[in-house]
Amino acid sequence: MVDKPLSGIRVLDLSRVLAGPYATMLLGDLGAEIIKVEAPNGGDDSRGYGPFIGEESAYFMSLNRNKKSVVLNLKADRSKAILKDLARVSDVVVENFRPGTMERLGLGYEVLSKANPRLIFASCTGFGNTGPYAGKPAYDIIVQGMGGIMSINGQPDGPPTRVGVSIGDIAAGLYTAVGVLAALEERHRSGLGQFIDVSMLDCQLAILENAIARHLISGEIPGRLGNRHPTITPFTSFPTLDGMVIVGAGNDTLFFRLCNAIGAPEIATDPRFKTNPLRCQYWDELEPQLKEVFREKTTREWIEILEAQGLPCGPINTMDQVVGDPQVEARGMLVELEHPVAGKHVVTAPPYKFSRTNPSVDTAAPVLGQHTEDVMKELLGMSDEAFALCRGAGCFSM
Amino acid sequence: MVDKPLSGIRVLDLSRVLAGPYATMLLGDLGAEIIKVEAPNGGDDSRGYGPFIGEESAYFMSLNRNKKSVVLNLKADRSKAILKDLARVSDVVVENFRPGTMERLGLGYEVLSKANPRLIFASCTGFGNTGPYAGKPAYDIIVQGMGGIMSINGQPDGPPTRVGVSIGDIAAGLYTAVGVLAALEERHRSGLGQFIDVSMLDCQLAILENAIARHLISGEIPGRLGNRHPTITPFTSFPTLDGMVIVGAGNDTLFFRLCNAIGAPEIATDPRFKTNPLRCQYWDELEPQLKEVFREKTTREWIEILEAQGLPCGPINTMDQVVGDPQVEARGMLVELEHPVAGKHVVTAPPYKFSRTNPSVDTAAPVLGQHTEDVMKELLGMSDEAFALCRGAGCFSM
Repeated sequence: MVDKPLSGIRVLDLSRVLAGPYATMLLGDLGAEIIKVEAPNGGDDSRGYGPFIGEESAYFMSLNRNKKSVVLNLKADRSKAILKDLARVSDVVVENFRPGTMERLGLGYEVLSKANPRLIFASCTGFGNTGPYAGKPAYDIIVQGMGGIMSINGQPDGPPTRVGVSIGDIAAGLYTAVGVLAALEERHRSGLGQFIDVSMLDCQLAILENAIARHLISGEIPGRLGNRHPTITPFTSFPTLDGMVIVGAGNDTLFFRLCNAIGAPEIATDPRFKTNPLRCQYWDELEPQLKEVFREKTTREWIEILEAQGLPCGPINTMDQVVGDPQVEARGMLVELEHPVAGKHVVTAPPYKFSRTNPSVDTAAPVLGQHTEDVMKELLGMSDEAFALCRGAGCFSM
Repeated sequence: MVDKPLSGIRVLDLSRVLAGPYATMLLGDLGAEIIKVEAPNGGDDSRGYGPFIGEESAYFMSLNRNKKSVVLNLKADRSKAILKDLARVSDVVVENFRPGTMERLGLGYEVLSKANPRLIFASCTGFGNTGPYAGKPAYDIIVQGMGGIMSINGQPDGPPTRVGVSIGDIAAGLYTAVGVLAALEERHRSGLGQFIDVSMLDCQLAILENAIARHLISGEIPGRLGNRHPTITPFTSFPTLDGMVIVGAGNDTLFFRLCNAIGAPEIATDPRFKTNPLRCQYWDELEPQLKEVFREKTTREWIEILEAQGLPCGPINTMDQVVGDPQVEARGMLVELEHPVAGKHVVTAPPYKFSRTNPSVDTAAPVLGQHTEDVMKELLGMSDEAFALCRGAGCFSM
């Protein structure tokens, strides 16, 4: 067995769909053992989300690689005892039910932490476990809307726009992973686990960068800027002869070099454009001048010219271009897996390399309940008879 | 001193602008001591980015709360020795120079890990330390363009659109924090640090959700969908009498309840709209029917009606509405700090609560070099004379 950063850590994963499963995917890629507990009636909802390969959800498969699947009918009393047994031998629980659901099942943090005081219990919910909205249901697009990001995403003359990926879930998944790992570090000192209450809405505020500050300082309400950065200029895209090119000149030196590289040194010396605050202020005058120049060559030509000068630039890639990109290939960012039913399919790799204990994607997502028997017998030490009894008691089925 | 998850962990932070500082902000909020090392000529570039309070950058202040600032002129030999001394007493180094920069300074991972084999060294760069683009400069918008997210963000009839926050940096910052924390856990087993190579471009692929899978399975090139979810319907916004309302009906039961709640039960029973795959397929027929209904009441009225039925829904908030939201207030998501020069200002809080060792925002961002003398004398034990000598040797100035 190859050593990974989280080898030896066991995560009991009761989460569904995206935020929770994204967090446990990160932990699993890093080497933690992820035991995904699913309900018997079809399991994780996202097993029904497209795109599909045959009848298997590629949505589910991409998020649940490196995990084991155990079916437990948590309405059966004996299943609750099994879940407690699993919590006793786990380091972490991750769940994303609505606040109070685990308590109603008799499996809340208080109960499980009594069974295992070292247990770290992360609850990832739409609005957190406290406050007036705590009980409300939420999905990605709800917290994207309420958290403000949609109001600053889109074209200046267009409507508020959902971010094209489920950043409401993904940000919360990342913060859940950070929270769990920080609590693991703390446990080395205290010997104790703790409860972590992650709110998707709060995570939206945490990724707003400086939009709240901009509003509170000036009273202005930040709007949509298309491809422009709110406070750095030029940091945007320009139409070319055959598409678009992105240019990021983050400081005055780069702006000077940019103007020279594109054959327009007179722009760099124009007193209206000398500093970044001035360029932001006089953008309406600067933009048409740059646009006129960039219209004259193809995207590929501009990238060659700008790269030769070491200037930050790039294309706007579509997915076919992303998967064909030589850097993406060189970094091994696309991994082929063999799923027992769907067969060969591709998922993205972890986006970092560790020098000694590198994370990796090793096994395809499980079919529903693929590891129920193994986990019951090998991890919990159930005899064949005990397993049959639990099965008879409806622990593993509807 | 209040105990926090990362109390006792010291991070030497050589990073600038956003991705690296965002990572160390997370670690600092969680209780790590962050020693930010800045160059003497103005320090971190983002000290020059708006919005400003007086002459102080609110952009910088929001990212660098809970940190100390030390000025070191890394071109002076004696400063390099000081940096090595700091690395010797630190647990983590975070830097986001281009690959090779730290090596050229004689301060690469190999050198610093010899001084301190327990050191975890995270390098967060545009394209990672390997591959054909490794040496290229990158900013947020460059990797947003190259990573594909812009091609799926925006309105169907509009251009590819930059995500309205610097998600290229923020995703990389989050992954850098995850990587550092995972390496800390591993260090408890091995006693050793390691090098972590985080690529902003790779992080963009890691947050694409299922867009790459959609392309590879069908050959289709995912485009822009406005506020729609690619595979869940209805999961979008609708115009109302006075604005917009977001509705997320993630499964068939919720869709049925939604149609009844809005007084259009005939939509729910239409065979074209019975299942999620059908609703995705017949969206062009479904959308106008739902649009017609939602146009009849105000956003507030719809939210009341839908909430009464427990249906996931919400408004699209602008920044003034976000800061005035009762849930945001109840969760304590806005924290007022007192900066020595800028005075009172507001930053966002960490988006999670820990039951025993809660992260928090305690101190405002430092002015440039605010802690140079303290760190040299108290942490490195420099005498007054040694400090004066270093100052004379140009360690702390241009």
